Order: sequence, then C-alpha cells, then structure tokens
Amino acid sequence: MTDEIREAVPKIEELLKERQFHELRSMMTAFEPADAAMIFDLIDEEYIPILFRILPKESAADCFVEMDSETQKTLITAFSDKELSAVISDLFVDDTVDIIEEMPANVVKRILLHADPQKRKEINEILNYPKDSTGTIMTTEFVDLKASMTAEDVFRHIRKTGLTKETVYTCYVTDSGRHLIGVVTVKDILTAKDENATVGDLMDEQVISVNTLDDKEETARAMSRYDLMAIPVVDNENRLVGIVTYDDAMDIIESGDTEDIEIMAAITPTDRPYLKTSIFDTWKKRIPWLLLLMVSATFTSRILQHFEDSLTSSAAMAALIAFIPMLMDTGGNAGGQVSVTVIRGLSLDEIKMGDIFRILWKELRVAVLCGITLAVVNFGKMMLIDRVSMPAAFVVSITLVAVVIIAKLVGATLPILAKRIGFDPAVMASPFITTIVDALSLLVYFNVAKLIIRG
Amino acid sequence: MTDEIREAVPKIEELLKERQFHELRSMMTAFEPADAAMIFDLIDEEYIPILFRILPKESAADCFVEMDSETQKTLITAFSDKELSAVISDLFVDDTVDIIEEMPANVVKRILLHADPQKRKEINEILNYPKDSTGTIMTTEFVDLKASMTAEDVFRHIRKTGLTKETVYTCYVTDSGRHLIGVVTVKDILTAKDENATVGDLMDEQVISVNTLDDKEETARAMSRYDLMAIPVVDNENRLVGIVTYDDAMDIIESGDTEDIEIMAAITPTDRPYLKTSIFDTWKKRIPWLLLLMVSATFTSRILQHFEDSLTSSAAMAALIAFIPMLMDTGGNAGGQVSVTVIRGLSLDEIKMGDIFRILWKELRVAVLCGITLAVVNFGKMMLIDRVSMPAAFVVSITLVAVVIIAKLVGATLPILAKRIGFDPAVMASPFITTIVDALSLLVYFNVAKLIIRG
Repeated sequence: MTDEIREAVPKIEELLKERQFHELRSMMTAFEPADAAMIFDLIDEEYIPILFRILPKESAADCFVEMDSETQKTLITAFSDKELSAVISDLFVDDTVDIIEEMPANVVKRILLHADPQKRKEINEILNYPKDSTGTIMTTEFVDLKASMTAEDVFRHIRKTGLTKETVYTCYVTDSGRHLIGVVTVKDILTAKDENATVGDLMDEQVISVNTLDDKEETARAMSRYDLMAIPVVDNENRLVGIVTYDDAMDIIESGDTEDIEIMAAITPTDRPYLKTSIFDTWKKRIPWLLLLMVSATFTSRILQHFEDSLTSSAAMAALIAFIPMLMDTGGNAGGQVSVTVIRGLSLDEIKMGDIFRILWKELRVAVLCGITLAVVNFGKMMLIDRVSMPAAFVVSITLVAVVIIAKLVGATLPILAKRIGFDPAVMASPFITTIVDALSLLVYFNVAKLIIRG
Repeated sequence: MTDEIREAVPKIEELLKERQFHELRSMMTAFEPADAAMIFDLIDEEYIPILFRILPKESAADCFVEMDSETQKTLITAFSDKELSAVISDLFVDDTVDIIEEMPANVVKRILLHADPQKRKEINEILNYPKDSTGTIMTTEFVDLKASMTAEDVFRHIRKTGLTKETVYTCYVTDSGRHLIGVVTVKDILTAKDENATVGDLMDEQVISVNTLDDKEETARAMSRYDLMAIPVVDNENRLVGIVTYDDAMDIIESGDTEDIEIMAAITPTDRPYLKTSIFDTWKKRIPWLLLLMVSATFTSRILQHFEDSLTSSAAMAALIAFIPMLMDTGGNAGGQVSVTVIRGLSLDEIKMGDIFRILWKELRVAVLCGITLAVVNFGKMMLIDRVSMPAAFVVSITLVAVVIIAKLVGATLPILAKRIGFDPAVMASPFITTIVDALSLLVYFNVAKLIIRG
C-alpha cells in the first residue's frame, strides 16, 4: 500500500524543482492525508515548506497531524505567525497536544502563543495530566446531550456543533452538574421505535467510563475488549471531561506493543521512527542496556574462573568447554519462551499475579518434557556425531534437563515479580533471563561434571 | 478492570451450587458481555451450561461470542439442537466464522446444520477464502445505498435493515452491478447543508478499499493508518462483498502483535490463551525451535573443539575461557536490539527492502560507537576488578568491538533477507541471531587471541 507513495517521491521532487505547482497540487490532492504526510516525511527537507503551501487549506491540517514530529518541527520553524495560527486553529485539541509533546520548549511556546485562548486553556489542562495517563490522550471535543432532548433536538445539536467533533456517533448524557449519567448512540436514536422518545428514554445508564488518571494503554485495551467506538473520560467527581476515540486507541495499542517489544529486546523505547533517529540517539537508547548486561556477565566469568583449573586438568574435562555455548543458548531460549509468554499475558491482562503458582506448576511439567526431549536428542548426537565419551555425553544431557527446568521457572517468575514491585515486566525478557540462567547453568554443569567424570 | 470479575467467580459458583438462579440472573445481567464471558471462562466446567441458560436471551449471543473457544466448545456440546439454532441465528456471520475456525470438524458440522440456509451459504463462502486473508474476517452485513437516495431514504433504509448490521455509520454506495462507487457517512448526511441532497451528491468517490485476498493484518493496519471506522472489501471485479469494522481491526492488530512477539521468542504462535493450553500443546509449540537452535549450536562446539588444544596449552589462553559467555551474550543482545527494531519496522511498514543499505550504514556507525563504549568500560573493568593481564584485556576488548559490529550487521540484514525470500521476518529475532553471532564471535575471539597472546 505504501509502495506507490515511495515511488511518487522522486517525481514530486522533480516537479518541485521545476516549480510545476499546478500539477503538484492536483497530485497531492489525490492522496489520503496519511499518504500525503508520508511524502512530506520522505522528500528533501528543503522542499517541505513549499510543498505544504501548495496543499489546499481544508486538507493541510489533516495532513500535518499525520507527519513525523521531525517534519512537523521543520514546518513550524518555517511557518509565518499567520500560517501557524491557521494550522493550529484547524487541529483538534488532542492532536495539538500530541504534537506539542514531541517538540522542544521554544517551539511549544510558539504554538501556545498562536493558539486561541480557549484552545490554549484546554491544551494546558491536558498537558498537566501525568505522563501516559488517559487525560493526555483524550479529546475535549464531544457531543454531550441532556436527558430531556428529543431525536430532533439531538440532530439539531449535532448539526450545530458536530462538524468540529471527532466523533458524533456516541453521545454522552450529562446532568446539570456535568456528571455523566448515560450514553446513547446515533444508531439508537435513528432506529428508535417511538419517534417521540427522549434521550433519557433511550440512553443506557450502564456506561463504561475511565478516569483521567488511568493508564492510557489500559484505556485502549478496555475499548478493544468492549468493542467501543469511544469511551468517556471522567474526573474524580464523575464529571465528564473528555472522550477517547477508537482511532487513538488503535494507535496506542500499536505503539504500546512496539514499546513492549523494544523493552523486551533491551532497548529504551522511543516514539521516533527508526530511520529518522540520529546515530547518537540510537546509541543512547541501546548502550545503557548493553553495558548493564555486559557487567552482569561478570558472574559467569567468576564461575568459569573458579572452575578453570579443573577444566584444564584433564582432557575429559576440557572436552566439556565445547558445549558451554550450546547449554547457555538453550537455557536462554527456553527461558525467553516463557518470559515472553508471561509478559504478553500480563500486558493483555490474561495473566494475574495470583496465577503464579498455576504457571510455575505448568512450566515445571513443560520443562521436564522439553528437557528430556532435548537431552535424548543431544545424547544421540554427541555419541554418534560428536563422538565424545559416554560420561561426557551424560554430563551434558543431564545438565540440559536441569538448565531447561531452571530457565523455565526463572523465566516464569521474574516478569511477575517485576510487576509486583512496580517495574515493567517487559524488562524481564530474554536478555536478563539469559544472564541469570547462564550463571546458574554453568554452576550445574561443572558440579555435575565433577560428580560424574571424577566421581 | 478484570480484577472484580475474577473476584466474583467464587460467589457465582456458590450461588450455582445453591441454585439461587434469580440472584444469579440479576448478577450476570449487570456485567458487560465481555466480562460475563470471562466468568464463563473461569468457572468450573460443569456449571457452564446451567449458567448460560440463566442469561437473558438478548444478551446470550453477545456473551457467547466473547468466550474462549474451549468454553464455546463445552457449550455447543451441551446445547440441544433448538438452543444451538437460537444462538447461531443471533450471531453475526463473521463471528460465527471465527468460532467455527477454532472448532473440531464434528462441531463445525453441527453448527452448519443448525444455521439457516442463507447464513450457511455466507459462512461457507467466507470459509473458502485463503487463511489470513481479509475475506475470512469481513462481515457480509453492511449498509449499501444507491446514489439516487435522499437523506430520508437513507434513514428509512437504515431503520429497516440497520438493526442487524454491525455498523451503520459508514455506508457504501454501489451501482446496479454492485460495484463500489462511493462512501458516505451518517455524519455527512446529518450535517448536510442542503436537506434535499442525494447520496450521490454527498458521497466521496475516493474510497479506500481492500481486496478479499489481501492479508488481514495489512487491512487492519491500513484502517489504523487512515483512521477508518470500517473498510469496504471488494472482489477482483471491484464488487462490494463485505466490510471490516474497527473492532475487528483492533483485535487483529493485538493478536498480530502477539503472534510477532511469540515468533520472535521462538514459539509457534497459537490463538489459545496460555493458561488454557495443555502441557502437551505448549511443549509442541516450543520444542521444535529449541531442538533446531540446540542442533545449530553444533557450529560453536566445533569451533571450541578446534581451539581446545591452544586453550589448555597456556594459562594466558585458559584465562580467556572465562569471558566467552560475556562476549556471546553481548553479541546476542546487540544483534537482538537491531533485529527486533527492523522486524517491527517491517511489520508496521515503516521499513522497506530498499532501505537495507541505509540501515546497514546507520547500524555500522551505531555499532562502532557501542562497541568502543563497551570495550573501554570492559578494559577498565578487566584491569581493575578482574585483574587479568593487559594482553588478555586487550584481546577481549578488541573482540568486543568486532562482535558488536558483526552482531549489528547480521541483526539488520537477516530479517530483511527473510522477508525477501518470503519468510516471516520475526523468525530472525534474537534466538537465531544469537546462534549465528555466537559462532562468528568465537572465531574472532580465538584468532585475535592467537595474534596478540602468541604473537
């Protein structure tokens, strides 16, 4: 789907060079806003402001919202004050906040300066909610109805105010104190049997709502769980202050998953697209984890140093060195399989803290099955292909069973414990599990070796 | 959010034991369908049919759809023919297909037998689309309009047919040959300035549509990209055959991400929730990968065997054994960081095959930065804490730089190559990268060691 857009880029750059603005305009108009935005992200930076001025006014803001924050920054810097005011006045409040969150302080100041007072007030309110809370993603533009309204009142109300609302189909009913008392959909009103029914008659008083302080990812997952097009956001006094719409929920689910995946791979998550992140920023996201994991490997070094003399003392023991990487990798893989399953289960709310003993009991049995299968195959392989002595094959195979059991139990426990003490369970994915399982595996390996080969 | 539901389970089981059906009914009615379904998934299997019969008829189907496939199977087996027909007739076609896809053949046969002929035909049509295609997830129930209709015609049409449609807000306009010619939303109609405007006047002829054969995850991502509430699905002749709605798109994005995460952790993906999968099934999902990775570690064993003599020949060489795990883990982690970033970029369509040289150039520079940082810290640590000889610290630190560079380049290349030859790039995540990087790291390590320590 995005291939055509990429292919259009050289053509557009050429037209820009030749100043064929008329043709450019008709070309750009044919794109969906998200696709047009992609063009801006891909063309040479110097053309961005010119191309933006070519866009028809009515689609400029839609396109602007979809751009990468780097492209937005380039544009905002190039905008005249008048252009900036025009774009901001066409943006929804929640989109403006999303943009602001990615901008440096001087750009934020300029945006706030050029927003009208009402919007500025709303932006500041949203900016004051804690990081990752539902308050930061909600829109304050929604249709609120009173219980006494009739179908005709509702449609008149939507017609009057609906054009600027992000969603008009789910309407919320509030009392005189702005407390949320019900929900009614345009479909309910359109398909009402009694044409004179009021909003109060049609509304559902069982409203699923979230609090401004709830985690935004939990809000998005709740919307997916209950198949909601929009969810109302209330403050601590149950007053309706905003809504979150399905399109924002989808984005949050996608970027929440990206974040989980990045943390699992030991990268500090970032919102910026990979190809737009500078070398130095990429380094900053990765190096702390690499350093931490490298230093934690000191334990394994210590264990190996401790056994160094016995390893070099006999040929039988020295032969065991060759299988250290295989044992360590298998432990890491076996542990990673469980930890990732548990992390995902926790993040989708399928697994709870209280399930830990069920999970450990299950993993213990899976580990015994996996361990024995691997040990049998490995024993055969070592005897027939590697042609080592039978005691050596025994030592490695027995260690394999132990390593898989240890890895599965560690991999199941650590993410749940991390959540318990308030950390992100995703941190406890393969890299950390591997480091811990490595050390334990080596201890088991050499102790088993001493018992069997020397015993 | 789901904690209250879990806590309600013992209370409900007790009420079932005491046959307090009246209280149960009012308790169950208070739950959202998705939450009620969770109760069914959690209670003792023997109570499932009794509890289902207590539900009010109008909410029974909504609740049924949301249950785990295991619970659904239990119910279908317990249903009388009449009960089965009643539930099926209340289900949407796409939901019925979702359920059928998880059932064994005999249950499928029974469901098809009790569906009415029209629904059976639609189910069979959807079942015939290729696995993971958009055809398998679309619903055939949508609002289709003609260009000549007025606002009043539209609302009458929606009122007449809309109640059973999953979404009524986005309406598709077709010509006499059922070809898709436009899209119009209820909002467009409600807010039209000219009350006599026809659908043809209001509709947008630039419709984003997908083909029945397109990949379902790509369809879902396109909906998220373009912020669509529904997307029309056409056949090869551009005839409208179905729609996909935002709630299904959210589910597909969530489960697509789960699948990616599972493959990255070397697990065969499954739709079944972790806690409901049997020990044997869990073993089957994990053991092929563990075996494959274990056997591939033969390369590292061979390399170590090859260098065994030189390793045990001098104390200086033997001291190097202790740092093998650290080098291997760092390589695995550094490679995993890139491969996961690239895999996610490919799956979100942010990275293309053609970007490979840009990515390699970028990763090379990041790798040099990361490698040098790690080497410097490691050199200091080995001299001051481990107190090894300076040549040994040199060997390990130089190898570190090489390992990080190799790992980053391998980690960036393999997912893109995998996609190129038609494999799922997610396979090329940490476990595979680690196995390859391990072997290369050891080769570098011992060759550097020979040069410096013996040279």
